[in-house]
Amino acid sequence: MVRQLKLGAVLMGVGGPGQHDTWTHPEIPGDASIDIRWYAERARQAEAALFDLVFIVDSQFITPDSPPHYLNRLEPLTLLSALAVSTTHIGLVGTLTTSYNTPFNLARRLASLDLISGGRAGWNVVATGDGGTAANYSRDEHFDYASRYGRALESVRVCQGLWDSYEDDAFPRDVATGVFVDPTRQHRLDHVGEHFSVRGPLNISRSPQGQPVIFQAGDSDEGRDLGASIGEGIFTHSPTLEKAQAFYRDIKARAAAKGRDPEHVLIMPGVTPVVADTDDEAREIERANRLGKDFAKNLAQFGRPFGWHDFSGYDLDAPFPDLGDLGADSFRTQAEQIKKVAREERLTLRQTVERFMSSTPQPFVGSATTVAAEIERWFTGRGLDGLNVHITVPSEFARFTDEVLPILRERGVVRSEYEATTLRGNLGLPIPRNVHTAAREARVPTPAHV
Amino acid sequence: MVRQLKLGAVLMGVGGPGQHDTWTHPEIPGDASIDIRWYAERARQAEAALFDLVFIVDSQFITPDSPPHYLNRLEPLTLLSALAVSTTHIGLVGTLTTSYNTPFNLARRLASLDLISGGRAGWNVVATGDGGTAANYSRDEHFDYASRYGRALESVRVCQGLWDSYEDDAFPRDVATGVFVDPTRQHRLDHVGEHFSVRGPLNISRSPQGQPVIFQAGDSDEGRDLGASIGEGIFTHSPTLEKAQAFYRDIKARAAAKGRDPEHVLIMPGVTPVVADTDDEAREIERANRLGKDFAKNLAQFGRPFGWHDFSGYDLDAPFPDLGDLGADSFRTQAEQIKKVAREERLTLRQTVERFMSSTPQPFVGSATTVAAEIERWFTGRGLDGLNVHITVPSEFARFTDEVLPILRERGVVRSEYEATTLRGNLGLPIPRNVHTAAREARVPTPAHV
Ligand SMILES: Cc1cc2nc3c(=O)[nH]c(=O)nc-3n(C[C@H](O)[C@H](O)[C@H](O)COP(=O)(O)O)c2cc1C
Ligand SMILES: Cc1cc2nc3c(=O)[nH]c(=O)nc-3n(C[C@H](O)[C@H](O)[C@H](O)COP(=O)(O)O)c2cc1C
Repeated sequence: MVRQLKLGAVLMGVGGPGQHDTWTHPEIPGDASIDIRWYAERARQAEAALFDLVFIVDSQFITPDSPPHYLNRLEPLTLLSALAVSTTHIGLVGTLTTSYNTPFNLARRLASLDLISGGRAGWNVVATGDGGTAANYSRDEHFDYASRYGRALESVRVCQGLWDSYEDDAFPRDVATGVFVDPTRQHRLDHVGEHFSVRGPLNISRSPQGQPVIFQAGDSDEGRDLGASIGEGIFTHSPTLEKAQAFYRDIKARAAAKGRDPEHVLIMPGVTPVVADTDDEAREIERANRLGKDFAKNLAQFGRPFGWHDFSGYDLDAPFPDLGDLGADSFRTQAEQIKKVAREERLTLRQTVERFMSSTPQPFVGSATTVAAEIERWFTGRGLDGLNVHITVPSEFARFTDEVLPILRERGVVRSEYEATTLRGNLGLPIPRNVHTAAREARVPTPAHV
Repeated sequence: MVRQLKLGAVLMGVGGPGQHDTWTHPEIPGDASIDIRWYAERARQAEAALFDLVFIVDSQFITPDSPPHYLNRLEPLTLLSALAVSTTHIGLVGTLTTSYNTPFNLARRLASLDLISGGRAGWNVVATGDGGTAANYSRDEHFDYASRYGRALESVRVCQGLWDSYEDDAFPRDVATGVFVDPTRQHRLDHVGEHFSVRGPLNISRSPQGQPVIFQAGDSDEGRDLGASIGEGIFTHSPTLEKAQAFYRDIKARAAAKGRDPEHVLIMPGVTPVVADTDDEAREIERANRLGKDFAKNLAQFGRPFGWHDFSGYDLDAPFPDLGDLGADSFRTQAEQIKKVAREERLTLRQTVERFMSSTPQPFVGSATTVAAEIERWFTGRGLDGLNVHITVPSEFARFTDEVLPILRERGVVRSEYEATTLRGNLGLPIPRNVHTAAREARVPTPAHV
C-alpha cells in the first residue's frame, strides 16, 4: 500500500497558548470553546476534507491569566461522544491524563466512545504538564517524572488488557439455546502492578477496530520511551525539518528496538499553516499574528513550562534569571530547552520570551503551492507521517483544505476517499489481536495442521 | 403552579436484574445495551411523550453470571452526551458513583454534559452497592457505609462548589476593550475536607440551568439522610402505596428538618407498568413474566444484595441460612430486609427467593384506565411525585405513552407540552443561585436601598 499523509485537525474554540486574541476574530463565537455546535461544524468541515481525525487537547488547571480556551472548555470525552453521532468517518482522539484518572474508568469511557462511534476512538495519553493540577485531585504535589510516566505506561497496559475482556465471539445471543454470553470468552485481568491493581473484566466488548488507537504526547526521554512502547500516533511539535527528522528517526528506532513495526508508529506534529495568495502575503500574515501579541500575555504564557511561574516581577532587560530546577516537575523538556538557549546565547529575559513566544517564524507559510510542496518535502523526507493541523478560523481552515489539499491529492500524497469507517482502517494500523483468542488458538492446532 | 406528575424513562438495553430473557424479545436487538441508535430511538420516544428525563443506571463489577445488560453496557455519561445532541428537551440523568470517581472529574464531566445539552443534565449520586467493584479500582475492600456516604456527601458539595467557579457574568468577551474574562468573577474553591482536597477553579462555566440536577438512590438510613441533604430527585423502589407513602413522608420530613423546601425533593420510584386490553389480561402477562423465569438465574440474582453471594450450594428446602452480616457492606438495607422477612416468616431458602424474586405481584398492572387511576391515586396520595418507568420493549412503552398518559393528561396530571428546555425548568426546580454572586450582592446594597 502506498504511504499517504495522515491528517488530524486540532479542534479548539477560542485559542490556546499564544492565541490570546483568537476570540476577537469575527468568525469565532466568543463561547466557541463550550459550544458543541461549533465543534460539530468544525469536525464536519474536517470530515468533508477527508481528515483522519479530530484531536482534542486538554488541561484541568487554570488561573485568571490562563489562555481563553483553557478558562472554559468542554471535557474531551464528553465532547467527542457528542461528535461521534454528528459525524460518520472521522476519527475522534481525546487527550486524557493518566495522572488523575484510574485505568478502569479510562478503559471504560474510551471503549464506550469506540462503540458509539463504530470504531473511531483514539486516546492521546498524557501525564499532565501543569503541576498545579495536583491540588484539584487531593494531592500536595504533582507526580515526579518517574511515577508520572510509570503510571502512564501501566495505565495503557491495563486498559489494553481490559479491552480484551471479551473475545469477539463472546456473545452468541442464541435465542434458540437461550445462550446470551459464552462464559469461556469472558476474561478477568487480575493485574497487580506498581501503581494499580485491577481485576476486571471490563463490562464492555470490543469495537469494529478492536481497541482505541493510542496516541502519545511528551518529549522528554521518558516521554519518548513511552511513545515508542505504546504510541501508534505521536503528537509533537517540530519547528524545523531537521529537528523533525531527528525526532522521527529517534522514535522509530526506539520502537524498532522494542520489537515494534516502526510503520505502526505515526509521527504527527502539530502545525499551523498560513495560506495566502502569495508567499509574501502569507509571511506577512504569519509575522503580524506572531508579533501583534501583547507582551504581558506572552510573558504570562511563557511561565507555563515552569509551572506557570510568574515572571512579571523580573527585570526584563537583565540576563535571563537563574531559575534553578524550576519546571523540572512540570514541562521539564521545554523548560530545560529554554534555559539552555538563554544561557548559551546570553539572552535577557525579554529576548528569551521573544525568541520562544514571537520571534521565530513558523513553517508551512506561503501560497497553496508553496505550503503543499513544503508538506510533501517534510513527508517524503521522513520528518513526519502526518500533520495535526491547528487552524481555528473556519475560512483559514477552508483555504488549507480547498487549496493545499487538492495539490497534495493530485500528487497522491493524501487520500481521495476514506478507505474505512474505523480510525485504524484509515490510519493503516492493524487491529490488535485479542490476546485470549491468540493464546487459545496457539494452544489448539488449527484444522489445517491436523 | 399546579403540581404535575414527573416522568422518567429508565433506559436499558437487554434487561437488568430479574430480566434475564429480555434480549430474546423480537423487538430488542441482542446488542441493544451497546447500540447508541437504540438508546437514541428510546430517548426520542420518551421525548415525544413529553417525559422529563431519561435515567441511566450503572455498575462496574461483573462475573459471567451477571444479567445481560450488566455484562456489556455503555458508560452512562459517554452515552448521555451522544443523546444530548440527538434530543432537544428531555433531561439526561446519569448514575455516577462517588466511591470510584474524584469530585473534580465528576464536576467537570457533568458540567460538560450540562453545557452540551443546553441545561438538561442530571446526576444520580450513588455510592456503589457491589463490593466487588473495589478490586477494579486498586482497593482490597469496598468502602464501609460511613465512608461511602461520607464521600458521597462531600463529593456533591465539592461539585456544587466547583460548579460555581464562574459567576454568570464572568465572561464579558468585549472585543472593544479586549476583555475576555473578568478575573473577579472567577473563584477558587480551596476545599479541604475529610476525603478530598480540591482547590479549583473548575475550568467550565454554568449552563442555562445553573447546575446539574442532583438525584440520589440508596435506601439505608445513611442513604436517606444523603438524599434529604442533597437530593432534588430520589430514585427508589416502592412495592405498595403504604410503603411509598411512608418513604415519601420520611424523606420530606428529613429534608424539611435540614431547612430545605420539601417540594424541591421529588420522590420518583422505579415502576414497571404492564398495560393490556383488560385488567385480567395485564395481570396474566405480569404473572407470566414473573414466574416464567429460570429459578437458577433468579437464585444467582438473589445473591446480589449479599455481595453476589453464591447460593447454588445451599439446600433450597432447608430454613433460610444464617448469613451473619453478609451484605452489610454491599446492599445492606435490602440484605437486612430479606433476612428479617425470612426469619420472621420462617421461610426456606426457596420460599425466600420466590418471595423476593418472583411471587410478589407488581403495582401498576391493568387496562390503561386502571393503570392511570392507580398512578393518580399514588400521586395525589403523596406516595410519589413522579415515576421512573422501566419498560424496555418499545411497543410496551408505546402502550404506556399512548394509552395511559392521555388519560392522565386529560385529568391535568401530566403536562401537555414542555414548559422549558432545561431539566430544572421542566421539573419545577429552582436555579441554584451562584454563591459568590449572592455573597457579593449581600455585601453591596442594591440601588433600591441606596
Ligand atoms: C505536542 C504535545 C502536546 C501535549 N498535549 C497535552 C495536553 O493536551 N494535555 C496535557 O495535559 N499534557 C499535554 N502534553 C504534556 C505531556 O503530557 C507531558 O506531561 C509534558 O509535556 C511534560 O513531559 P515531557 O517533558 O515528557 O514533554 C503535551 C506534550 C506535547 C509534547
Ligand atoms: C432504587 C435504587 C437504585 C440504585 N441504582 C444504582 C445504580 O444504578 N448503580 C449503583 O452503583 N448503585 C445503585 N444503587 C445503590 C446505592 O448507591 C447504594 O450503594 C446501595 O443501595 C446500598 O446502599 P443502601 O443500603 O443505602 O441502599 C441504587 C439504589 C437504589 C435504592
